[in-house]
Amino acid sequence: MSRAHLAVVGGGQLARMMQQPAIALSLRIRLLAEGPDVSAAQVVADSIVGDHTVLADLERVAEGVTVVTFDHEHVPPEHLRALEAAGHAPRPGPHALLFAQDKGEMRTRLTALGAPCPRWAVVETTQDVVDFGLPAVVKTTRGGYDGKGVWVVREPADAAALFDDGALAPGVRLIAEELVDFRRELSAQVARTPGGEVEVYPVVESRQADGVCAEVVAPAPDLAPDLAAQAASLAEQVATELDVVGMLAVELFETTDGRILVNELAMRPHNTGHWSIDGAVTSQFENHLRAVMDLPLGPSTPLAPWSVMVNVLGGTVTDLEAQLPIALAAVPHAKVHLYGKSVKPGRKVGHVTVVGADLDTVLADARRAAAILTDG
Amino acid sequence: MSRAHLAVVGGGQLARMMQQPAIALSLRIRLLAEGPDVSAAQVVADSIVGDHTVLADLERVAEGVTVVTFDHEHVPPEHLRALEAAGHAPRPGPHALLFAQDKGEMRTRLTALGAPCPRWAVVETTQDVVDFGLPAVVKTTRGGYDGKGVWVVREPADAAALFDDGALAPGVRLIAEELVDFRRELSAQVARTPGGEVEVYPVVESRQADGVCAEVVAPAPDLAPDLAAQAASLAEQVATELDVVGMLAVELFETTDGRILVNELAMRPHNTGHWSIDGAVTSQFENHLRAVMDLPLGPSTPLAPWSVMVNVLGGTVTDLEAQLPIALAAVPHAKVHLYGKSVKPGRKVGHVTVVGADLDTVLADARRAAAILTDG
Repeated sequence: MSRAHLAVVGGGQLARMMQQPAIALSLRIRLLAEGPDVSAAQVVADSIVGDHTVLADLERVAEGVTVVTFDHEHVPPEHLRALEAAGHAPRPGPHALLFAQDKGEMRTRLTALGAPCPRWAVVETTQDVVDFGLPAVVKTTRGGYDGKGVWVVREPADAAALFDDGALAPGVRLIAEELVDFRRELSAQVARTPGGEVEVYPVVESRQADGVCAEVVAPAPDLAPDLAAQAASLAEQVATELDVVGMLAVELFETTDGRILVNELAMRPHNTGHWSIDGAVTSQFENHLRAVMDLPLGPSTPLAPWSVMVNVLGGTVTDLEAQLPIALAAVPHAKVHLYGKSVKPGRKVGHVTVVGADLDTVLADARRAAAILTDG
Repeated sequence: MSRAHLAVVGGGQLARMMQQPAIALSLRIRLLAEGPDVSAAQVVADSIVGDHTVLADLERVAEGVTVVTFDHEHVPPEHLRALEAAGHAPRPGPHALLFAQDKGEMRTRLTALGAPCPRWAVVETTQDVVDFGLPAVVKTTRGGYDGKGVWVVREPADAAALFDDGALAPGVRLIAEELVDFRRELSAQVARTPGGEVEVYPVVESRQADGVCAEVVAPAPDLAPDLAAQAASLAEQVATELDVVGMLAVELFETTDGRILVNELAMRPHNTGHWSIDGAVTSQFENHLRAVMDLPLGPSTPLAPWSVMVNVLGGTVTDLEAQLPIALAAVPHAKVHLYGKSVKPGRKVGHVTVVGADLDTVLADARRAAAILTDG
């Protein structure tokens, strides 16, 4: 086994994109991958196939390595505590990661911190939801992502359908949140080192389609300076109070009446920060590595007035390799990132970023290149 | 053996830096590496240990792969022709690579093309050198690099020392060139596809120390527009006439009387183009891959008015890992690239690029970060 500087748990595209700055900084990654040919395993020399829910596999990837970081937030907290007890440094640590793993814990803690949240409550019965007030958004506290584990409840019957017919697995806990009347979604990202150094990224606008991030505009257009400052300061506060190490994304609603409310937290590089690979002096992936390795952070300064990232979500195109030359011919300056994944409907298989001085042009170019990779 | 899109011969830092855009474009590299842990082998999932002078090793790395490209220019031409005969596509091909491998062939061909060269001649005896005129620069036609295989001959005795005391290995051929009175060295790079599409990079200034590239300023400061245009046009002409596929660097002298003369050719990503990783829309490594894979090229447009690249050449620092946090703390916006190589005096072990609007600041910042990694 070669000398590794850090272990990365999970072989998805986030781990894959960590490898690019890892090459530059000569940080050797040992990967715990779900299979021998998953996205990140294709591009890392030292990978182990294993299961992130099996402690022995986590111990294998961490052998001889101090820092352990993550492609996702699904490692069981008790395993992270076991790694800590064995002298490893999971970053972020389990005490922080809890708030990205459990929406009930997140809401409780953010409320205690005075962070602006939608009105919310734990719900255990149909009556609880009705008493909370309809319409409501009901969410599982754990395991939901990209619109999964989230239901909009408009009528008591919708709630009854959730509770009364065995739709929920045993042990699943739910919270209800007000259905926020929002103009748009924003994301505020921050990198934080173990010693508490922070670097805040420009607040971006995240546009969703079917509950999945479709495109991101950096910085968020026409964002009121006081809201931008509030979002940045909130991200910094949350990272600091929760002792996050690495990248934190605070996903926000900008309400129609001009407030921001926290929607979700993610403690890893995040889809809303992919623009920074091509659009910022220091990408979120480089700063994630710098943070977890306790290196000084780099500036998040944009390289151009506008960066637009458009996801390539599995569509009618099944042969990405055949479409790549067409996309590059159409938009030679598009920065195309493909994740080495097979195409399935709606699956995130890549993204495209375009940077430049004119937002309309940048947006059109990024959409055009992504469309060629999505639907030909 | 996994499905590979291209084979890369040689495991140095150029192959290593190809892996970053290969990840983005989902191009899988199979590497022929000099050892299991050389620079590029540390960061590529699919590598084979072998010798680029052994045809069987070249055949192994190319098995099932069409495109073969290179970290260096040292593969014997007869092996490249054998690969071609077996249906592979070495890019650049042996008919082009010859002119980067043999300075006599290069001078003959460039002279025939009307490209501006120093006065030169094949020399076989001391008298040939004296007749050529002193002072002269005498070079081996093959195998020289970074100042090796190059002698400045000022007196007949210097030439005699070369020819008369068995200093040269059998079969070594020499050329003499006039000792050019130059202001500075420039480099003009171009990417070219098999179909002849070209993308020209801004002409840069390359500053040498002890015959090795020490720093590069992009674009070359105060370069007369007509000389810049002539250099760019020359690079395009040479790439086209020699049928280069991939990156070509034309190293140039800018003479004190305001002309440009070709010094050397390199047919691969080149040290004078490393700035483009952080300073251009499309790096030389990405365009090398796009060119050899016959994908449309990307624009070489700079991301900032100035980019400065400073090499990290082995100095008194032996533990680069320990210096990295110091360098990043001193210059957080420095883009540090370490090659995963052990430090030896003068060895290229990394580089630093800084981009920005003020040349003096950019230059000072890049030098400061590189100095911390070189001499602490």
